[in-house]
Amino acid sequence: MSNTQPTAALLIIGNEILSGRTQDKNAAYLAKKLVEHGIRLVEIRVVPDQEEEIITAAQALSTRYTYLFTTGGIGPTHDDITAESIAKACDTTLECNAEALSRLEAHYADSDQEFNEARKKMAYIPIGAVLIDNPISAAPGFIISNIYVMAGVPVIMQAMTDAIVPTLAGGAIIHSRTVTTNLTEGTIATALGDIQHAHPTVDIGSYPYIKNGRLGVSIVLRGEEGSTLDDVHRAITQLITDHSGTILS
Amino acid sequence: MSNTQPTAALLIIGNEILSGRTQDKNAAYLAKKLVEHGIRLVEIRVVPDQEEEIITAAQALSTRYTYLFTTGGIGPTHDDITAESIAKACDTTLECNAEALSRLEAHYADSDQEFNEARKKMAYIPIGAVLIDNPISAAPGFIISNIYVMAGVPVIMQAMTDAIVPTLAGGAIIHSRTVTTNLTEGTIATALGDIQHAHPTVDIGSYPYIKNGRLGVSIVLRGEEGSTLDDVHRAITQLITDHSGTILS
Repeated sequence: MSNTQPTAALLIIGNEILSGRTQDKNAAYLAKKLVEHGIRLVEIRVVPDQEEEIITAAQALSTRYTYLFTTGGIGPTHDDITAESIAKACDTTLECNAEALSRLEAHYADSDQEFNEARKKMAYIPIGAVLIDNPISAAPGFIISNIYVMAGVPVIMQAMTDAIVPTLAGGAIIHSRTVTTNLTEGTIATALGDIQHAHPTVDIGSYPYIKNGRLGVSIVLRGEEGSTLDDVHRAITQLITDHSGTILS
Repeated sequence: MSNTQPTAALLIIGNEILSGRTQDKNAAYLAKKLVEHGIRLVEIRVVPDQEEEIITAAQALSTRYTYLFTTGGIGPTHDDITAESIAKACDTTLECNAEALSRLEAHYADSDQEFNEARKKMAYIPIGAVLIDNPISAAPGFIISNIYVMAGVPVIMQAMTDAIVPTLAGGAIIHSRTVTTNLTEGTIATALGDIQHAHPTVDIGSYPYIKNGRLGVSIVLRGEEGSTLDDVHRAITQLITDHSGTILS
């Protein structure tokens, strides 16, 4: 809707999401942080831990959007192929990054775990990349071109997101209002469409839900101008009242 | 991994997922049902409620995979543009489907809600499509070509999934075993890679987690042959024991 915002995509690298074993929570976390910073998340893709799939998606998404974020696949095991794949997508190769090695050395020196070959693999970062700090387990993410490569473990991904997002160029902040009613979509759909048509700078989303076996709807308004949102909010609450509906929140 | 399975993609149509307002749960539900039926979910995409985005993604994914499932955007409001977009992606148009109209008429006749113009919109289905039953709120999904268009409300999406999946041609069933340990990935990564190398028909995934502030790892084995999975399971439990780890489950 807004053309005054940078755009973003998220590439989730994870067989475990595609098998249904793991419920992804990283997308919602990133989405909220981007909204607050005036960046529009336009696409999310989940692909398997396969090099060709990762390269194809990374190239397509980094070309199309201002920022591409990836989650998953930067650990020490055989199925962690994100760094290598992103390096190839950017037409470069991995090198042992001195700063990453030093951080990992310090982390393992301070633990009861050996800094073995598998763990050293996590210091291999594409040439020219900038590190993203990992305050939890030291193994860094990295930035190359407009691609932000983050861990998949949610607590680490969240720390990385919190560090990265404030450094990005944001755009206009999109504000939102939500109206929830016991009416169903069909009752107000035509009039709601008229309100949308009359207010093209506001994006009106209609999200049905079922609670205690009954359908209801949450109407979400998004736009840059608080005063216009207030106008639309008033029009929608009036519409609900006119149809003898109850405003639940 | 398996080449003896049909493939699938899921296209989630939803601004509410991209804004972080709603946590998608449909992907995990579909993923599990497909695994049980011998179909491999290879890609998930989330795109906004924009016609061009939906058309582009639907064409790309339906060409590439055996089955494409979509969720969201088939209701009566102005932002429900999935049916129209999928019709265009399939180079056809919508028509008022007599069977869909009849189901909706019966549903609303049995309710205190008017069968108004907005609700009649939900009877408009691409020419030649086959309906998917909606036992909750009547408005049907539909099948056109290899595209299965479902509702976004989870309880309705789940009913549609349960009805569709058993009708699909499945392939070899992939079984899985999980071993969870208090060891961290780096401790066992090299040996785990060796086990993977020795058993190319098994897909070994390593998924770190953090619990009570400590890292651990769940190792998930997937493959068609139970006996091979048992062999790999034994090798991994031995590996954990050799490194003085505890098997948590």
